[in-house]
Amino acid sequence: MTVDKETNQVKLGTFIFERLSQIKDFHSVFGVPGDFNLPLLEHIYNVPSLNWIGNCNELNAGYAADGYARVNGVGALITTFGVGELSAINAISGAFTEGAGVIHIVGTSSTISKRSTTPLGVHHLIPNKNTWDRSQDHFTYEKMVEPFCCVSETLDDTKLDQVQSQIDNVIEQVAKQSRPGYLFVPVNMANMDISVDPKKRLNFKTYRSDKQQAKELASVILERLYATETAIVGDQWFKTRRHKLNKFIKENGFHCFSTFLGKSVIDENQEHFHGVIAGELSTEGSLQVLNQFDAVLHLGVNHNEMNNFRNWSPSQHVKNVMEIGKDYVRIDNQLYTYVDGELVFDELVIQFDSTRLLKKKEIIPRLSQNLPELDKSANVSQKSLFQTVQTYLRPNDVVVCEMCSFLFAIPDLKFPQNITFVTQNFYGSIGYALPATLGASLAVKDDNSNRRVLLIEGDGSSQMTIQELSSLTRYNVKPTVLLLNNEGYSVERIVLGPERPYNDIQPNWQWTSLLKAFGDTDEKKSVNIRVDSTLALEKALNREDDRLKFIEIAGLNKLDVPWRFAYLCGKHDN
Amino acid sequence: MTVDKETNQVKLGTFIFERLSQIKDFHSVFGVPGDFNLPLLEHIYNVPSLNWIGNCNELNAGYAADGYARVNGVGALITTFGVGELSAINAISGAFTEGAGVIHIVGTSSTISKRSTTPLGVHHLIPNKNTWDRSQDHFTYEKMVEPFCCVSETLDDTKLDQVQSQIDNVIEQVAKQSRPGYLFVPVNMANMDISVDPKKRLNFKTYRSDKQQAKELASVILERLYATETAIVGDQWFKTRRHKLNKFIKENGFHCFSTFLGKSVIDENQEHFHGVIAGELSTEGSLQVLNQFDAVLHLGVNHNEMNNFRNWSPSQHVKNVMEIGKDYVRIDNQLYTYVDGELVFDELVIQFDSTRLLKKKEIIPRLSQNLPELDKSANVSQKSLFQTVQTYLRPNDVVVCEMCSFLFAIPDLKFPQNITFVTQNFYGSIGYALPATLGASLAVKDDNSNRRVLLIEGDGSSQMTIQELSSLTRYNVKPTVLLLNNEGYSVERIVLGPERPYNDIQPNWQWTSLLKAFGDTDEKKSVNIRVDSTLALEKALNREDDRLKFIEIAGLNKLDVPWRFAYLCGKHDN
Ligand SMILES: Cc1ncc(C[n+]2csc(CCOP(=O)(O)OP(=O)(O)O)c2C)c(N)n1
Ligand SMILES: Cc1ncc(C[n+]2csc(CCOP(=O)(O)OP(=O)(O)O)c2C)c(N)n1
Repeated sequence: MTVDKETNQVKLGTFIFERLSQIKDFHSVFGVPGDFNLPLLEHIYNVPSLNWIGNCNELNAGYAADGYARVNGVGALITTFGVGELSAINAISGAFTEGAGVIHIVGTSSTISKRSTTPLGVHHLIPNKNTWDRSQDHFTYEKMVEPFCCVSETLDDTKLDQVQSQIDNVIEQVAKQSRPGYLFVPVNMANMDISVDPKKRLNFKTYRSDKQQAKELASVILERLYATETAIVGDQWFKTRRHKLNKFIKENGFHCFSTFLGKSVIDENQEHFHGVIAGELSTEGSLQVLNQFDAVLHLGVNHNEMNNFRNWSPSQHVKNVMEIGKDYVRIDNQLYTYVDGELVFDELVIQFDSTRLLKKKEIIPRLSQNLPELDKSANVSQKSLFQTVQTYLRPNDVVVCEMCSFLFAIPDLKFPQNITFVTQNFYGSIGYALPATLGASLAVKDDNSNRRVLLIEGDGSSQMTIQELSSLTRYNVKPTVLLLNNEGYSVERIVLGPERPYNDIQPNWQWTSLLKAFGDTDEKKSVNIRVDSTLALEKALNREDDRLKFIEIAGLNKLDVPWRFAYLCGKHDN
Repeated sequence: MTVDKETNQVKLGTFIFERLSQIKDFHSVFGVPGDFNLPLLEHIYNVPSLNWIGNCNELNAGYAADGYARVNGVGALITTFGVGELSAINAISGAFTEGAGVIHIVGTSSTISKRSTTPLGVHHLIPNKNTWDRSQDHFTYEKMVEPFCCVSETLDDTKLDQVQSQIDNVIEQVAKQSRPGYLFVPVNMANMDISVDPKKRLNFKTYRSDKQQAKELASVILERLYATETAIVGDQWFKTRRHKLNKFIKENGFHCFSTFLGKSVIDENQEHFHGVIAGELSTEGSLQVLNQFDAVLHLGVNHNEMNNFRNWSPSQHVKNVMEIGKDYVRIDNQLYTYVDGELVFDELVIQFDSTRLLKKKEIIPRLSQNLPELDKSANVSQKSLFQTVQTYLRPNDVVVCEMCSFLFAIPDLKFPQNITFVTQNFYGSIGYALPATLGASLAVKDDNSNRRVLLIEGDGSSQMTIQELSSLTRYNVKPTVLLLNNEGYSVERIVLGPERPYNDIQPNWQWTSLLKAFGDTDEKKSVNIRVDSTLALEKALNREDDRLKFIEIAGLNKLDVPWRFAYLCGKHDN
């Protein structure tokens, strides 16, 4: 730490970056400069382990920080007052909805102008509705983010003694809750001296509820586990606990499922994994297996129209459903709120006595994946793409998928071990996936795992945030990009207006020249390939090449979507 | 109207578009489809005079609608629940701050799911903070926009008899106030039948305050105008009244000024125009002229740090300042609020008796523009660019300028007659100008004026919203684009960190191949030229060509900014 040893003083801006650098594997900070954050940005150069990743715009920075957080737990972006922070707000709303730990640091107007009794009319700040009134509400934007964050702190130079705990609070809450948090830093404060307690460490471990209660709930659940054979369902809010959960499942041979939004929580390679359950959107045969159980332990529950398509719920199949949620427990329809689900689960693992488990039931296994023979010389279709992707996947891959048609095939993919699946399958803001791929790719660089990153996205979504493609080569990351060129918004075509112009996009984008136009003129850092047949796609995927691979899949039929999406729209005909 | 003659019934969606089509010269609707607005979009095809302009993303759609509104008075965009509307919110905040009449129509969740007591967990909608609680606040997003709009209406199928007045209210308020308004349309309502009053017309003319009071204020102001020689200052909020204002000024030979934000309000070609006043940022000699007056009538006042740099105000030069604001009048420091300034001005013009005016003062004229000889073979500089643009401009041009370095030279330009100047010089969200150019270009098509549109923007700003370049050729508009390639964020470099990486952007973008990559492969619709010398720039500008002209100005020095910007940053040295 660059804290002065005698005075315990440090520059506020430097302290922020030092604290960020103490997060595990955290080395990249995203964002866009502006005159309200420049003095803060200067301090990043005092912390050598951090890199500034300049994005093309703030929405992209938000998505990138989200992608980073999905892999490494916490991501951060820095934007400027008003114009920057509002541009990113949709990314933050998405991060909240999907559970990504994004720290959004905003450089705001100075405390001097905030307090001034002769208001100046500060740029970037919304004026008073009455033009005669020069006063502005400097907190207009800060007030808006309340629904989108788990913590928000505004630094204040009349309370410099609180700054350390405010900064720490944002980082700790975001890391702990996997949800966005805001830190508002007035522009004149970045260079101020603050006194800090150099011995205080960031605390990422505190549980958010009472341990005794958690112990008791765990033991109630365990008694049921011992008494009835119980299947485990791994859902979205347990992504953060998935390693521990899979260990527990494997060691004890539990039968298990995942949900649509929980895809990737459960290791799908264990003998007793029976697929994804989501009512009529479930993988083939999964509900039949579920029917054979009397009890389910549902972890990290996320109830909504994706997981619970047409109001389906596991309780339609199983008498006894116990839920350990993110922040609650439900047993026998008795609800215990403000309970830290991870703590309950941790207690359950501690107390668990495997000798008391019932003998495993003989389960009629679900139908095994039945992949038809492909005509590899034919145009790529959603079905053939599915098989190609299935074959391509390897353990530890990071798979990023846009809210495009292919997303609805993903539950049917059998994920190899330890896939990190990055998507917004509930919030579903298109354009997310490309910048998120930048974030995820930097994360696997920063944690030295160098895992492969695969991005699958539609042409319509890609256009939303296409400039961030240029940041991939700028920051030397090498994901493989599959661009599904099906001439517009196919998923919308299935919903309404299959031939309507509103579902078209500017046709004829030269996808494979984009990276060149964005600066990789001689393809030093990327290789850009257009394919139409499955054969060509496989060849492109298998090609040994150390550059970023951008593969445009041309010739897809614009009305071809996976069965699950047609079903979702009530338009499935077989 | 497609209203049924017997029943007076019409489909709600169709009615919305019919009403929009009744706005003068209104033929383009911007936006992006989504499953919450598709049923509404279908109805646009019932109104043949309207065109759907699909944007690459929603922020761009917001900027485009703003650019359209700047030229034709009202613009509109349609987005989808959450993901779409939040993506556009920064554009709406900008439109509010700068005064653009943008109607933002949002397709929201159905009234059924809004009312449901067994909440479904609707996608795109932020979930409850407590994961055990499946209820969602369907109005989360609607509540956020209050600071950014002058009107907001939520349609409700239990109040179908109010729908017509709600729709009309949004359109009328937006048109009248030149500020954004929201219309929230639940997805299940677009196809509902509503009864309308077929005789009711949209009313764009109502004043928003009492006529008698306006008359009295006008006459008080007039008495002063007759008694003291008074200069007129035209400021931002009188953009909407500029034709009438200029007529009044010219007919009576008033001395006049504009402000930084009011640039383009006053016709600069009249004999008695004395430049832009904004304290130390004023055009050369303007304050000396102002000093010679005893009174000022300031119209459309917008007080803030741009117009009132370092707390400057006209009252430092002139004893008596009268203000007719957008919504107030101030005389002798007596403030009259909630007064419609346009009404007061209209009354003033009616009551005006030119025979009572004092004889014009002999004014020592301000220094005339002193353009030094250019070395036209040298690299383009900010100074030479200024001269080139000055020479290029013609009456009736639409000039769009980004919040980039060149914006700060614009006050020194002498605008030919009837320039429409489109910029965000106070809100200053970069990325605005390119999509706004799409909007402005469609507006000059829609009103059949076919005015020339010139866009001036920096490379950093352009990257923010670059995909919308492709919509220019998609929708066959032909602005001239000047792209200032100075390797990054020059204005930020002057503020802080001239050599810092945070002020760099991905270098080496092939600007002149972008339009080709975006679909105009054989340059049928655009010509793309890279220049570095003034000579080459002039040649490119003068070239007869009926296509969109994209001109990249390369070789600009990255620390070269107009004097006014250096001054603003306290870094001017001559
Ligand atoms: C920000 C945002 N705007 C609009 C939508 C509505 N939307 C959902 S999917 C989709 C189309 C995606 O098209 P594409 O990426 O081409 O994938 P495809 O369906 O063709 O596979 C749209 C417009 C959205 N989800 N998010
Ligand atoms: C949305 C948004 N993000 C960030 C900023 C801060 N900002 C103001 S000007 C500017 C740089 C503009 O650079 P460029 O367009 O290249 O113009 P130049 O200054 O080089 O002429 C930035 C980043 C802003 N105003 N708006």
